[in-house]
Amino acid sequence: MSNQTNKLFRLAARPVGMAKRSDFTYEEVPVAQPNDGELLVKIQYISLDPAMRGWMNAGKSYIPPVEIGAIMRAGTVGEVVASRHPQFQVGDFVSGTQGVQSYAISNGKGLVKVDPKFAPLPKYLNALGMPGITAYFGLLEVGLPKAGETVVISAASGAVGQVAGQIAKIKGCRAIGIAGGAEKCDYAVKELGYDACIDYKRGPIFPGLAQNCPEGVDIYFDNVGGDILDAVLTRLRMKARVIICGAISQYNNTTPIVGPKNYMSLLVNRARMEGMVVFDWAPRYGEAVRQLSQWMAEGRLKSREDIVEGIETFPETLLKLFSGENFGKLVLKV
Amino acid sequence: MSNQTNKLFRLAARPVGMAKRSDFTYEEVPVAQPNDGELLVKIQYISLDPAMRGWMNAGKSYIPPVEIGAIMRAGTVGEVVASRHPQFQVGDFVSGTQGVQSYAISNGKGLVKVDPKFAPLPKYLNALGMPGITAYFGLLEVGLPKAGETVVISAASGAVGQVAGQIAKIKGCRAIGIAGGAEKCDYAVKELGYDACIDYKRGPIFPGLAQNCPEGVDIYFDNVGGDILDAVLTRLRMKARVIICGAISQYNNTTPIVGPKNYMSLLVNRARMEGMVVFDWAPRYGEAVRQLSQWMAEGRLKSREDIVEGIETFPETLLKLFSGENFGKLVLKV
Repeated sequence: MSNQTNKLFRLAARPVGMAKRSDFTYEEVPVAQPNDGELLVKIQYISLDPAMRGWMNAGKSYIPPVEIGAIMRAGTVGEVVASRHPQFQVGDFVSGTQGVQSYAISNGKGLVKVDPKFAPLPKYLNALGMPGITAYFGLLEVGLPKAGETVVISAASGAVGQVAGQIAKIKGCRAIGIAGGAEKCDYAVKELGYDACIDYKRGPIFPGLAQNCPEGVDIYFDNVGGDILDAVLTRLRMKARVIICGAISQYNNTTPIVGPKNYMSLLVNRARMEGMVVFDWAPRYGEAVRQLSQWMAEGRLKSREDIVEGIETFPETLLKLFSGENFGKLVLKV
Repeated sequence: MSNQTNKLFRLAARPVGMAKRSDFTYEEVPVAQPNDGELLVKIQYISLDPAMRGWMNAGKSYIPPVEIGAIMRAGTVGEVVASRHPQFQVGDFVSGTQGVQSYAISNGKGLVKVDPKFAPLPKYLNALGMPGITAYFGLLEVGLPKAGETVVISAASGAVGQVAGQIAKIKGCRAIGIAGGAEKCDYAVKELGYDACIDYKRGPIFPGLAQNCPEGVDIYFDNVGGDILDAVLTRLRMKARVIICGAISQYNNTTPIVGPKNYMSLLVNRARMEGMVVFDWAPRYGEAVRQLSQWMAEGRLKSREDIVEGIETFPETLLKLFSGENFGKLVLKV
């Protein structure tokens, strides 16, 4: 083990607009060995998430920013290759937040054992990981869906969206997706079971919303912000709920964020817009993963990953998220 | 009675920006007499409210727009001067929505008897009327205040704000007002009992918010929208509630509404922004008025009116609302 190399990316500068390679430093260092109470994980897959862009900014947010010089924060899944920790054995597989690196030492805190026999490892960064758990609590606990309601989901084939759409269907709702391109929209309808999917790349989404939500939108699960949020606000139904889960359209702004100019629709429709961060449900992650796993075992929950190989490609691969190029959950294979 | 003249304003055109005199037609017509089941009210006070600007616009809102040619909608209080309605007698005083006119026929629907011996008539358009009821349900049912929380209220000395601020204090909260000018701020603190009041005319309100809400804002009761909403969003505390009651800064826009560019604070702080329209609580108006009356009788609820005489001045007097010139609830004395 001691001859192994740990490949890692540190945050070198706070990006302006899109993150670029020079905002990171790439290093190759010898792999450290665990002390008493520690374990060493060989990371196999790294989760690339829109939220990572926010973590690179200075200033108050829902978690502290990544410090300059620190290893870039990221969700991970990997195999225990050395352990001096009583609860972990060599050969265990664990998910956690071990950062953009190929090996990581841990004291076990925040690691969760996962079973590659139940589902391929990347699923634990996707439908059985943070995105799935986010969709689960966001839709069910903030959105409070009732059977028969109309749920609109942006980034419908993305990591969070694909799970939210399928849960909406499981709960008896109509699910209308918004995604970029015919291929993603087809996938949303044919594979994920959305009732319809509006292709925002074909033009304004108002006609599609009017056609597919004739009685209005009861729940909008927003992953994108910007013009799409504004468009959906015009179609809210009375007592609608807007779940603010993300705003990927705004994360790389170098000018101020564009606020939802149609927010007064909240007043007209006595509607509610509420932000959610999955960490608040940490004590209930187990419940979500059990339910999501059960739906997956029953064939009612599918998920798709877009797996890119090579940790060295991290800075460029991350950008696929913001161009909408990725198709499914973006995962870096180490 | 038959020689009396009814002075009235009809909506003549949908205003662009601020309403102007030519958007209305003024008429003097003979007073009609009630048929069986009707009564005639001599209107004494007419409520001038920010919401009236929205009612002049075409298009879907929380109530239908005022039709072109129709008498301008407004809250009113007056005396029954003729009655062929079993439940109303000459000499009764009633509040209702009888429009900008000096006499009005009614079938009794929507009229509520009020008691000028308990409180002067204009109070029934203010703390004991729609603004008071709006503050009551908005703060208590949407804001869900808990003792010790910090409540920020814009248009703090306005019709809704003054009641909301006093209810916040009654419920054991810290109440921080935002108002325009030293006189209004003094009034908010010295007469209404706000803990502090930030004068937005003196410059950006950020420093005042930081100083007076060191732990952040638990509840923001928004009557104004625009820059002030954006500023308060930057100070939200975890699980904050933003009550969208109005957006007077935006009602006369001829360009698109400016959305709250800091709305992502809802996500960071797991906060909720929710619109409210008082009409939804119509079945519970009685409960609110009883409680507000009791607080008033106990000397715990004050309210101030800005009374302008002469129904003929209606178009110009209405504009005082949007310039912030009125001090207290704006009422037109017929």
